[in-house]
Amino acid sequence: MNFLEKKICEEGIVLAPTVLKVDSFINHQIDPLFMQQIGCEIAKRYKAERITKILTIESSGIAPAVFAGLELDVPVVFARKKKSLTLTDGLITSKVYSFTKQEENEISIANKFLSAGERVLIIDDFLAHGEAALGLAELVNKAGALISGFGIVIEKSFQDGRQKLVDKGYRVESIARISEMNANGITFLKSEVTSL
Amino acid sequence: MNFLEKKICEEGIVLAPTVLKVDSFINHQIDPLFMQQIGCEIAKRYKAERITKILTIESSGIAPAVFAGLELDVPVVFARKKKSLTLTDGLITSKVYSFTKQEENEISIANKFLSAGERVLIIDDFLAHGEAALGLAELVNKAGALISGFGIVIEKSFQDGRQKLVDKGYRVESIARISEMNANGITFLKSEVTSL
Repeated sequence: MNFLEKKICEEGIVLAPTVLKVDSFINHQIDPLFMQQIGCEIAKRYKAERITKILTIESSGIAPAVFAGLELDVPVVFARKKKSLTLTDGLITSKVYSFTKQEENEISIANKFLSAGERVLIIDDFLAHGEAALGLAELVNKAGALISGFGIVIEKSFQDGRQKLVDKGYRVESIARISEMNANGITFLKSEVTSL
Repeated sequence: MNFLEKKICEEGIVLAPTVLKVDSFINHQIDPLFMQQIGCEIAKRYKAERITKILTIESSGIAPAVFAGLELDVPVVFARKKKSLTLTDGLITSKVYSFTKQEENEISIANKFLSAGERVLIIDDFLAHGEAALGLAELVNKAGALISGFGIVIEKSFQDGRQKLVDKGYRVESIARISEMNANGITFLKSEVTSL
């Protein structure tokens, strides 16, 4: 098992066959050193891609994205789920349905922070049905920038998000790929992480 | 001027005498290396305080908090503004009115991530009227933990947030303290940042 799979087994809580709680180290409490390791692993996989910008979405994508951004030495932009009063003009938007929260959000970024021709790495904490990932991809496409790929912390490989992205020709790198989970345990697909 | 004041003067946009837009490097696009410098500066000021946990609030507090957390080698917990479907039991909550967004939010953390006796550093990107800061302080108090102080990126010193915190006996450290701002420029209060 790689470092993330090990942590998921130790601290993750399977609430249902599709619901994994990792709030002790990823999406509520954050272990900074561990998150840096995740960011570095994502950065390593895209080192050759001459990334110019990282795009993520608030809130749980921010921590892995800033550590990957530090490693690749590129700015991070986080899409917002709600409109800000001080960010009104020049927005690029897309709609994202959240299965977890059972609601549709309009996500947005200021167009001045994503230019045509940029090479974008999209980072998020989870990939499940791919709704957030596709929404972020739409933002990049609307800006005329290039999607170099996705860097995902935990992929629920038993759901169809990865396939949707692969079908569109996108590269997807996930640090942990869960093929099955239930009260008895969590099974992972083979991973290529080198830092164990 | 310190490194942050300089960046504010170069990239900040004064939209009104009370509204400063710093979305190019703090709360929409993030400059990771610069944010690490901010996190390290906050950490340095609290190095002697034997901090055991950093508390912040989504979304813009997360980046400075994780870098400070990395430096101090402590976990970061970010309070949520909305309830999560997978975070339902054992919540500590408080109410926060946002002048910027003109709405009241209930913010919350899972009580298992903040224990009685912990020494907590509260980090946020802005301090203005102090509503978010007081809401976060209430969470810490309800948990029976100790507030070691606040680490703020940008303080609007012409508003009363700092005074409210100081009146309650809290230590407040802000990397940039703005005494006045308008179309002609931004004036800062004296700052003690050593890394220029």
